[in-house]
Amino acid sequence: MAELDETRSSFLALYDILKHELIHDADIKFTEEMRLRVEEILDYNVPRGKLNRGLAVIETYKALKGGDELSEEEFFLVSVPGWCLEWLQACFLVLDDIMDNSQTRRGRICWYRQPKVGLKAVNHGILLKGHTHRILKKYFREKSYYPDLIELTEEVGYQTSMGQMLDLIITHEGKKDLSKYTIDVYRRIVIYKTSYYTFYLPVAWAILLSGEKLEKYKGIKEILIEMGVYFQVQDDYLDCFGDPEVAGKVGTDIEDYKCSWLIVQALELADDCQKQILYENYGKSDPTSVTKVKKLYQELDIPGKFSKYEAESYEKLLAAIEAQSSAAMQEILMVLLMKIYLRKK
Amino acid sequence: MAELDETRSSFLALYDILKHELIHDADIKFTEEMRLRVEEILDYNVPRGKLNRGLAVIETYKALKGGDELSEEEFFLVSVPGWCLEWLQACFLVLDDIMDNSQTRRGRICWYRQPKVGLKAVNHGILLKGHTHRILKKYFREKSYYPDLIELTEEVGYQTSMGQMLDLIITHEGKKDLSKYTIDVYRRIVIYKTSYYTFYLPVAWAILLSGEKLEKYKGIKEILIEMGVYFQVQDDYLDCFGDPEVAGKVGTDIEDYKCSWLIVQALELADDCQKQILYENYGKSDPTSVTKVKKLYQELDIPGKFSKYEAESYEKLLAAIEAQSSAAMQEILMVLLMKIYLRKK
Repeated sequence: MAELDETRSSFLALYDILKHELIHDADIKFTEEMRLRVEEILDYNVPRGKLNRGLAVIETYKALKGGDELSEEEFFLVSVPGWCLEWLQACFLVLDDIMDNSQTRRGRICWYRQPKVGLKAVNHGILLKGHTHRILKKYFREKSYYPDLIELTEEVGYQTSMGQMLDLIITHEGKKDLSKYTIDVYRRIVIYKTSYYTFYLPVAWAILLSGEKLEKYKGIKEILIEMGVYFQVQDDYLDCFGDPEVAGKVGTDIEDYKCSWLIVQALELADDCQKQILYENYGKSDPTSVTKVKKLYQELDIPGKFSKYEAESYEKLLAAIEAQSSAAMQEILMVLLMKIYLRKK
Repeated sequence: MAELDETRSSFLALYDILKHELIHDADIKFTEEMRLRVEEILDYNVPRGKLNRGLAVIETYKALKGGDELSEEEFFLVSVPGWCLEWLQACFLVLDDIMDNSQTRRGRICWYRQPKVGLKAVNHGILLKGHTHRILKKYFREKSYYPDLIELTEEVGYQTSMGQMLDLIITHEGKKDLSKYTIDVYRRIVIYKTSYYTFYLPVAWAILLSGEKLEKYKGIKEILIEMGVYFQVQDDYLDCFGDPEVAGKVGTDIEDYKCSWLIVQALELADDCQKQILYENYGKSDPTSVTKVKKLYQELDIPGKFSKYEAESYEKLLAAIEAQSSAAMQEILMVLLMKIYLRKK
């Protein structure tokens, strides 16, 4: 744990360097006003997350290299895509919050809701994405794996935007119709919108950086994608049944008519009368409706179903990990799994 | 002219092929709903422009290759980035219209103003950008110039978003203050927001596709960028003084408080009393205010100043083009210049 804390603070220290480079990019004729604006956008949106995705790149790389301490230079070089992932994440969050009409993010008001920002946040999201290319270009342009790196980044970015599209079609479009919320739809949204960039991308980047080809590690994409689904199911569970004190946020999935794992399960288990209650109350923001839905979740023993799902997912992931031929990859996947197994926040 | 019409219709015919490939991309598990949605987004936003940017890639490539007819295969291959430019343009227009709160585009209601679209258009803009990468990857991944192609695309995309940021800061931010509208600010916005992708990118892409390095053609970036500025000055002039029947749109730059070439010139020429009138009436949507501004433009002989600017720009560009060492490049630049010289729409 102490080691991870150290990695974390070393990683965090590099943010200022990358930011400084971007706002003093000699290819762009910045005005002082632009420079200040870009700095504000970055400081508000990039470094304030849990940094799990960025750190995963470093940890995976370390394991692939045999677990030794990295030289300062090597640490820097692997932190660069780590930060790109945080930049990419910032881009998704800034834009998704606009589309989802969200109020708060990471305990503060959403960026686009800042009075002086508004829909200019669309431009800022694009800029954050653009920064990932500037950064990757600066540090990796001469590497043989540069085309693979860019291609992977673009592919995952594309998958994520397809996930967001699917989510918008299913959740926000047309009449509210819970019959659309099936487990297949749920999985498809989660895999595209979350799994690829949260679990697959950091590991895949680390593989490329270590000089290996992605084809060497067969089957890990599937494992990482399933880990992403498991992670999102936990997220959905904690949104409703987690301790807001521990999670640092109050869930609103019911009010927001989210295609959550809980509602998908409830719809599968409910009889006609219970379904009626869900159809009438899901997606409404008054506390009485929310309470009715939560009460029904309890009646249907969704928490029990979740525990069962959690245990089963863990077992399945474990079996898949053990079937991996690379010991280093087994270790990495286990570290990632143990980070989320039974998590409370 | 007949030849260009033919090129145009051959080019247009390829749109359906690229669209079909994107919505049947085997890497993405489309639902039928997603497929229909993507098709709608593309049909509304991609093929309905003047296609000048896309066609410029083809024409430049042809000239670099000595002017002979292209084989069907070669025509297709060079049309692909041509279409990518139209896709990129669609991305910028969809997103800019949201940020500028625009009403109409290409004679129709803006995409984001379609009742069922709204802010989901943000996702659609991202998707359009993502498509350019999918397309370029499919057709150019194995070419030696692929990294240059991607880098150029990203660089120009980044410059364009910096231009949009600058425009948003200057035009839409803080109190209305015309003293910010100087010729330096104007040029910076135009160069970043318009010149790079409209004039430089098609030519630079064609150079790469022809197997040459960009460094071979020194000085063309500066020429193309100046051509972009000239193009935008014309645009600003036509917005106010053009014939709406010919242009197909009614200008609203005055109402929209745009940092237009006309207001920049007027501010330079106006005495204190005239400045007062501009400060009081520019950026207001009532017809009386608009008329006052237009009347003042006439008083200050802005149309005369524009004619002078047009003649001088033409002369300067001509001289710069004649100084180019490559005859093929001279020809291309002349074609581009003659397309816009004295244009009325």
